[in-house]
Amino acid sequence: MRRLIECVPNFSEGRRSEVIEALVEPFRRTPGCHLLDYRADPDHNRLVVSVVGDDEPLKSALLQAAKVAVERIDLNAHQGEHPRIGALDVVPFVPIKNASMEECVRLAHDFGRTLNEELDIPVYFYEEAALRPERRRLEVIRRGQFEALKTEIKNPERHPDVGEPRIHPTAGATVVGARKPLIAFNVNLRTTDVEIAKEIAKAIRASSGGLSSVKAIGLTLEERGMVQVSVNVVDHEKNPLYRVLEMVRMEARRWGVEVAETEIYGLAPLPALVDSLKYYMGMHSLSADQIIEARLLDLMGGEG
Amino acid sequence: MRRLIECVPNFSEGRRSEVIEALVEPFRRTPGCHLLDYRADPDHNRLVVSVVGDDEPLKSALLQAAKVAVERIDLNAHQGEHPRIGALDVVPFVPIKNASMEECVRLAHDFGRTLNEELDIPVYFYEEAALRPERRRLEVIRRGQFEALKTEIKNPERHPDVGEPRIHPTAGATVVGARKPLIAFNVNLRTTDVEIAKEIAKAIRASSGGLSSVKAIGLTLEERGMVQVSVNVVDHEKNPLYRVLEMVRMEARRWGVEVAETEIYGLAPLPALVDSLKYYMGMHSLSADQIIEARLLDLMGGEG
Repeated sequence: MRRLIECVPNFSEGRRSEVIEALVEPFRRTPGCHLLDYRADPDHNRLVVSVVGDDEPLKSALLQAAKVAVERIDLNAHQGEHPRIGALDVVPFVPIKNASMEECVRLAHDFGRTLNEELDIPVYFYEEAALRPERRRLEVIRRGQFEALKTEIKNPERHPDVGEPRIHPTAGATVVGARKPLIAFNVNLRTTDVEIAKEIAKAIRASSGGLSSVKAIGLTLEERGMVQVSVNVVDHEKNPLYRVLEMVRMEARRWGVEVAETEIYGLAPLPALVDSLKYYMGMHSLSADQIIEARLLDLMGGEG
Repeated sequence: MRRLIECVPNFSEGRRSEVIEALVEPFRRTPGCHLLDYRADPDHNRLVVSVVGDDEPLKSALLQAAKVAVERIDLNAHQGEHPRIGALDVVPFVPIKNASMEECVRLAHDFGRTLNEELDIPVYFYEEAALRPERRRLEVIRRGQFEALKTEIKNPERHPDVGEPRIHPTAGATVVGARKPLIAFNVNLRTTDVEIAKEIAKAIRASSGGLSSVKAIGLTLEERGMVQVSVNVVDHEKNPLYRVLEMVRMEARRWGVEVAETEIYGLAPLPALVDSLKYYMGMHSLSADQIIEARLLDLMGGEG
C-alpha cells in the first residue's frame, strides 16, 4: 500500500516570479517528489506549495528550497498582508494515506533539526509536533511577526525549539509541524447582505462555540452579487463537509436565504469527499478503495 | 497526463480455485499491468477480472490468461447460470482517463486478431467495437450460448468477425469490445414488497421507456427484510448516479416507501462520484483534479 505524506511549505514571496520559480524548482526536479500545486498571492506576498513525496526526497527538496529562500528573501524588506516570521515561514507535514500522524511528527522534528544545522535558522514546532503545549497554535508562535521576534526571541518563553535564541538576520525563523489536511470550503449565499454571512460564520465556527474543527468568516463577493461563508475545516473527520454545509443551510433559513453554491478551494483528500457522498446518497458501505483511481494509486506504490 | 484503460475480461470458471488463480496470475505478474480486482461467482461459474495497464502489457497478459483458459476450461463440461459462449467469454476495453473510445476500439480489434491468430479462437466484436450494427448488443452474439453456436456459427449471419466459421472445440468463441465503464448501483427500499422494487425498476430502465443508459431489476433481500432496485448504469455521463437515485426516490413516493441505503458494487471511476457530489452539494466547479489522490496518479504517470 502506497504511503502518502503531503507537505505544504509557505514561503514569504508572492510577487517576484523568478524567485517563485526558483523556490518551486527543487520540488519539480527531485525524483520521488510530486509537486501537486503552487499558488502565489501578491497581496499576501506569499507562496504556498503542495507536494507529496517519500521522506528523504521531501526533506532534500525542502532543504534546497529553504536555501533559495535564504538567498533571495530578506524579511527586513518584506511587506504583505499575511503574518510571517520567516522566509520559509511554515512547513506542515500532513498524513494523507497509509501514514500516521506520528510519522509526520517524526518527519517534522527531523526536518526542523536539519534546517537549523544546515542554515542556522531557529525552528519552532507547532500543532501535533509542538514540544510546548502553547505552541500548538501557530498564531502564538508568530505573535508580533518577524519584526517583534527579532528582540523577543531572547526571552525564554520565545526561545526556539531548535537552535540558539537569535533570529536569522534576513530569513527570520521557521515553524515546522504536523497537522491533518486542511480543507478550504466556501458556501455562497443568495443575498448581498454580508451581515448574514458573518452571523452564520459566527454560528458555525469553533471560536464562538460552533463546530470544533471549523474556522469561518463572512465575506462579500462583489462581482457575484452574493456573500460567502468562507470556511477552513481543520479536521474533516470530526467535522465533515456535509455537516458544515447543512449547518450553514440551517442557519441561513433564519433569514430566508438560500445556499447558491459551494466550492472547494485548492485540493482535498478523497476520503473527505467520499464521506459527504455517503451522507447524501445513504451509501454507507462506500470506501475510497472502490474508486478506480485510488485503487490504482495504491497498486502503483513501491518507492516511486 | 497518465492514460488509463481498464480491461474487464470474463472467464467461464468460478469454482475451481486453482484454475481461478492460474487465470489471474498473468495480470498480477506482468509489469505495466495493475490488477484492480477479481471476483469469482460459483453460481454463475464465472470469473470477472478488472485490470488497468498500458496497451502492450495488457494484451500480453490477456493472451497468457487466454492460453490458461484454453488449457483448463472445457465448455462442453461447463455449467452455470450466466450465459456464455467461450472459456474466455467477454473482453471489454474501457477508457478511464486521458484515453478515447477510439483507442479502446483499436485495442479491441488488435487483441481480437491476435487471439485468433495465436489460439485459433473465433472472435466477435461488440458494443463500440462492433463491425456489424446488430452485434453492438452482447446478447445477440451470445444467443443460444456455446451449445447452439457450435452449429449456428456456420450460418453467414453468425460468422465470426475474425477467423474461420468453426468454434474452438473446448474454448468456444470470444467476444471482444470497447465500452464505457459500467457501474453496478443498488438502491435498497424500506419495504418487503418486491413488486414495488420491480415497478420502480421498470419505470427507470431504458427497455421500458426510462433512462437511456439504465438497466434495472427488482429483487428481494431476504436477510435484510428489504427489497432492492439493482441497477447497471452503462453510461454515467448520460445518466449520473444522483439522477438514478432521485428517480427511484420519486417513484417510491407513490407507495410511501423510503430509500434505506444505496451501494456501489465493485469499482467505479472517480468522475462518476464527483458528478453526484456536485449535484448534492451545489459544488459546480469541483473537478477530479482537485482530489489529491487523482492529481498524484496523473503526476506519477509515464509508462509505469
